[in-house]
Parts: sequence; C-alpha cells; structure tokens
Amino acid sequence: MTSPVLHCLRCGRAAAAGGTRFDGCRACAAEGIGVNTMPPLADLGGVDLAAYRGGPWGLPAALPVSGPPVTLGEGNTPVVRLRRDPEHAQEGRPVGELWLKYEGGNPTGSHKDRAMAVGLAAAVAAGADTVVAASSGNAGAAAAAYAARAGLRCVVFTNEAVPTGLRAQIDALGAERVVHRGTTAERNAEMARAVEERGWYPLTSYSSPSPGGNPYANEGYKSVAYELARDFSGRRIDTVVVPTSRADLLAGIGRGFRELTAAGLIAREPRLVAAEPAASAPYTAALRHPDRADQERTRVADGPTVAFSLGEERPCWQGLDALWRSSGTAMAVADDAIMAEYRRLATEGLIVEPSSAVGVAVARELVGGPDALVVAIGTATGMKGLGD
Amino acid sequence: MTSPVLHCLRCGRAAAAGGTRFDGCRACAAEGIGVNTMPPLADLGGVDLAAYRGGPWGLPAALPVSGPPVTLGEGNTPVVRLRRDPEHAQEGRPVGELWLKYEGGNPTGSHKDRAMAVGLAAAVAAGADTVVAASSGNAGAAAAAYAARAGLRCVVFTNEAVPTGLRAQIDALGAERVVHRGTTAERNAEMARAVEERGWYPLTSYSSPSPGGNPYANEGYKSVAYELARDFSGRRIDTVVVPTSRADLLAGIGRGFRELTAAGLIAREPRLVAAEPAASAPYTAALRHPDRADQERTRVADGPTVAFSLGEERPCWQGLDALWRSSGTAMAVADDAIMAEYRRLATEGLIVEPSSAVGVAVARELVGGPDALVVAIGTATGMKGLGD
Ligand SMILES: [Zn+2]
Ligand SMILES: [Zn+2]
Repeated sequence: MTSPVLHCLRCGRAAAAGGTRFDGCRACAAEGIGVNTMPPLADLGGVDLAAYRGGPWGLPAALPVSGPPVTLGEGNTPVVRLRRDPEHAQEGRPVGELWLKYEGGNPTGSHKDRAMAVGLAAAVAAGADTVVAASSGNAGAAAAAYAARAGLRCVVFTNEAVPTGLRAQIDALGAERVVHRGTTAERNAEMARAVEERGWYPLTSYSSPSPGGNPYANEGYKSVAYELARDFSGRRIDTVVVPTSRADLLAGIGRGFRELTAAGLIAREPRLVAAEPAASAPYTAALRHPDRADQERTRVADGPTVAFSLGEERPCWQGLDALWRSSGTAMAVADDAIMAEYRRLATEGLIVEPSSAVGVAVARELVGGPDALVVAIGTATGMKGLGD
Repeated sequence: MTSPVLHCLRCGRAAAAGGTRFDGCRACAAEGIGVNTMPPLADLGGVDLAAYRGGPWGLPAALPVSGPPVTLGEGNTPVVRLRRDPEHAQEGRPVGELWLKYEGGNPTGSHKDRAMAVGLAAAVAAGADTVVAASSGNAGAAAAAYAARAGLRCVVFTNEAVPTGLRAQIDALGAERVVHRGTTAERNAEMARAVEERGWYPLTSYSSPSPGGNPYANEGYKSVAYELARDFSGRRIDTVVVPTSRADLLAGIGRGFRELTAAGLIAREPRLVAAEPAASAPYTAALRHPDRADQERTRVADGPTVAFSLGEERPCWQGLDALWRSSGTAMAVADDAIMAEYRRLATEGLIVEPSSAVGVAVARELVGGPDALVVAIGTATGMKGLGD
C-alpha cells in the first residue's frame, strides 16, 4: 500500500511519508496549537448516492487506505425524527424539524466504530501486529472490537473512571486493558514510548496539545455525511450538531460534506455546530474571541461533567477549522439541561449516552429559530452505562 | 383502520374480527396445542428490492397495520461474514460461507424492535392507551421503548431473573415494571385479566400453551427476510439459522421468505433451522417423532441454560409450521458449546447475547457440510449483560 502524504491542516507542512507516528504537526505544536495532518479530500465525482450502501466501506475509494476492509457492519445508522419541542410549539413560533442520527446502532454502540474500521485496515496495511488506544470510553471498546476482527493485538490505556459496562466490553473482546493512574501527560509519554520503541500502531492521539486522533481512522467519519446526504436526498439540511471534544467526528463530518459539495452531490454544506458541556467548553470559549489567532490558543478549565466522554482544555484546530469553513459555531449546555434532555429522549424511547444529549439539547434551541431542518448526532448508546 | 381477519394457522378457523385478545386459536388450545392466528400473506408483486430501505416500515404495504408508523429506526441491521471454522478447514473439507445478521444493531439492541415497532402502531390504531408485555428480557425493553415513542403507557411483567442492564433500560424508558413472583400460569392469568377487564393491549402471549406472540407485531420480523434477500441479491442462501423458543422470529422470517418466493423476488426459500439450548429443546425433541400429530404435542423438561432468553416446554405450532414448510430442522447445543461460541465470536469482535451464540454454533456445523451459504441470526447484543 502506498499511503497518501499527510499535510498539516494549518501550516501546510507535509508529515513524514509512510510513517505511523500520528502525533500531529510538530511545527504547530511548538506554537502550542494541536493540529492534525490529513490526507487530501476524495473526489466523489460520478458517485451515485442512491446506490451507496452506507458506512466507510460503502465508498472505499473515498478512504486513504487501499488494503482489505476491516468491518463489523458499521455505519448505516438510522435517522429518527424527534418530537417537536413543546415549549416552542406552545408559543406559536415556527418550529423546524429535529432529527437524531443514532450512532448507538453501530456494532459496539458508538460512532467510534466508523473510525476504528478504517484505522484497523490502515494498521493491517502498515504491517502492525499491535494497536494501542488511550480511552476511557467508546474508542477503547471500538478499538478492541476491530482489532479482534482484524486479528491484531490491542492494548487500551484507561483510567479508573471507565464505566463498568465499557470495561467489561473491552475485556470480553480480548484487549489488554492498562489502568493508568498518572496524569494525561504521563500516559501520553508512555504511549509515545510504545509507538516509537515497540512499533505499536496508535489509534488515538498521544501528544499535547492533542491533534485529535489518527488521521486515517478519522476518515471513517466522512460516511456520516454521505449517509445524511443520501437519506435527506434533495432536502437541504440547515445544520448538523456534533457533540465535540477532540473534534475527530466534527472534522470528519465536515470533510465529508465538503467532498459532497465539490462533487455536486449536495447544493451546499450544512452549518456545523459543536455542542459542548458547559463545564468544559473550549470551542464555545474560543469563538468568543474575534481573532482566529486568539481562538486557536484558547485554554479553559476542564471541569467534571455528566457528559463524561466530552471535555478538553483546548480546542483541537481541526474542529475550529470545520466550524470556520462551514460558518458554524459552538454552543455549551449545563449539566442539568443535559440530564433533562437525556430524560426527555427516554420519553421518546431513546436511551443515549449523556454526551449525545448535549447535541440534542443544542439542536432543540436551533429548531426554535430560523433553522428548518437540524440533525443532531447521537454519538453513542446509553445502554452501556445502565448497569452501573 | 380495518384490521384484516386473522385465521388459525392449523385449523383455519377465523379469530374474532377487530379484537385485541391475541390468545391464539381456542379450538387448537383445547387440544393442547398453542397455535397463533395470522393475517394473510402480503403480495410483494412489483416490489423493487434494490430500493428497499430496510426495516418493517421500509415496506409498509406488507404490514397488516394501516395507521401511522411507530419507529425508532429499527431494522437494516448488518450482515457480517464470520471467519471460517478452523477445525473444518484443517480437515481439508469444503467449507461454506458463514454470515451473522447482527440484530443487536437495533435501537434497543435486539430483534424485538422490529416486532414492537409494528405492535405499537397496531396498538395506536386499535385505540389503546396502555400496552402490556410479559418478558424478562429484550421484549420488555423493546415494548417500553416503542410505547414511549408512541406516547402510550406500558406495563412490563418481569420475574426476578431479569438482568440488571435490561431492568435499568425498562425503568429508564418510563415503563411500569411489575416483578411477578408467581408461576407462569399465575402471571398469564393476571395479564389476561388486564387485557379483558382493563382493555390493555397485549404485545406478548398470555395463554397456555403459548401461541407465540402478538400476530400483528410478529409481522415486523418479515423484514429480516426482505433485508437478507436484498443484501444477498442474486445469491442463493441455503440455510437461515434462528435461535428459537416461541418461534415468533422463526415464523416471521419464514413468512417473509414465502412472500418473496411467491412474488418471484427470490428463486427459492432457504431452509430454516431452529437453534435451541440442549437444556430446553422442544423443537429438536418434536422433530424426532415421525408423525406430525406427535410432534405438535411434544413436551420437554425446561431446564436452566446460559441462553436465558430461550427455553420452552413445548414447541409453538407456528415454529413447527415454519420448519415443515421450508424442509427445515431443529438442532440443540449444550451450554458449554454455547459459551465456547460466545467466546469465539468475541475473538472476532462481536459481543452477542448467549442466545445468539446458540444460532452461530449450529450454523458452524452446517457450513462444514454441504451448505455453501448459511446465515445465523444474532438476535441481540451482549452489551446489556456485561455490567452484571
Ligand atoms: Zn502545522
Ligand atoms: Zn386452530
């Protein structure tokens, strides 16, 4: 396999060709900014979206990996129309359509499956025998499942906060779980040593500031955009709301919509909105600054939140880039509003992870305004946490 | 809405028109045989399977419910090719393709979502305000979710054996959970009273011998057959293996394949195989008798098994009928082989409920024989049980 050359999104520098050290752009990191390196956008010219079967491997030519697919049937998740917000309806205001794209329907129960399907194919193509992920949540479970599927050894660094169900899921899939009790910096250093000295293939980031994930794996998220374009065929989606911390999902969805627009498959890109817990909202804080130079250097306190899989001190540059390019924004939601939305979704039959409720809470605000059709990405099932 | 008339599958008697007492054929029950009443098969003439979007509501004209859909995006679950059985491969024998249709990808994590989507639409069309289900497993969770979606009150009768995660799921969805400590007969009697005196709409069976579920809801399972026919377009599926206790899923899949064959959309129906835990295997026992009259009166001891959602004392007639019509059979698997298969699936990245492993274990036997393409139905995710 010949890997495409990766370039820094921000300064344009090329990353070392063929390498498997995905620690972002070192030049930008030296300025204190975490920027991912990325492959070129795919050319979707000639694609028939109506025939697209969903998932990353439904359009393999759009992926920067030429080896055999690794798949558990990820993607092609449902979009469900939610009930209208009763408060807004009572006020007699026009209310748009609010849809949830339910990523909990993926094989391990979260959107991370789309990334790990591609990430493991890239690891196999790179000749890796061991993959490593640092995660106390869904990414660890997805890495474990897809490594098992690909027949590679998997090591997952977690901390003590990992929920019971997720821990059991990682263990049942045969991954080696290392409970790291040190700081994030210490964990990153340990993972960097494993990558450099033992040749383990990294599926998540391990440098600071974080660039936001393995750039090959992240290409799997483009399929969320492809599926939405197919499923809302001919209708204009005004806004897509994405629960965001390291912005791997947000950036991937943005890239998918840009590819679709460039190929003329959709008329225009939806506006992207990053949804964050108020306790830890670096994108919301960043966009308060008028200058992009200040935005990309924003740092916030990272407090505890019910949306445990979200929360960062700094924005990842790939997320800011996605928001800038789509004329988007970021919005924060307090923990009590997150849990209220979690309960409201349960009254509609949907049990999602609290992080998913963050996105729906934001989306509900938007459909009370001028937006006619808003899609919130429900990143993960809430079933894993129910046994705790 | 005008409901179609339901007829007893076995004796052909018509059920009371428009009723909501789905307790099977009383005449056959008087002979000691649990037989469901059913609507006529749908005419799929003119259907373009390539354009079928999956799920029960992807072909609403095939359903006996004319009211508005109730949906959480159920169906359209992935089919994943499993690795070949290494033992058979080593012996140099020809080995067929083994595929898993992973129903754990449904919104509440099991195949029951297909049924409850249709069952709740039928309940709404019948003017019900309360639905009731007896289940200590996936059916209860699915009933709770779709009742929430439809805005109806839901009562779930469970016993004390319900796993933690499922119990929490039912509670989170706002259903009223009644822990029944009596015998199955006492629970059935209580549910019958609720149906007859309070007008609650029954989503599961409550008579003995069990007919095997609400016949409107069960029509939702036909979509499993439609999806398989679409996804294996042009290829012949030799056998579909279905984990079976009350045979609602087995019978529904069989009906779907018969509709497809009648409309010329597939060349011939696959053989259906009922997979059972050896500790409780009424279909396997029944088919040992040469005469159908003995088969339909079979009774076995119902022992404890790791496949907790399976296990009945008697075959439901709808299951025997599905096996007879497809020249199928039933096969039983011991608990240690079930757990070995559960672990083998985990090494491929799949965490399923032990009941699903029953089907895969049977299917692995068949692909070592003359069958070239076997699909096992993986009925539910194993993630719900992991927190226990
Ligand atoms: Zn750079
Ligand atoms: Zn009868």
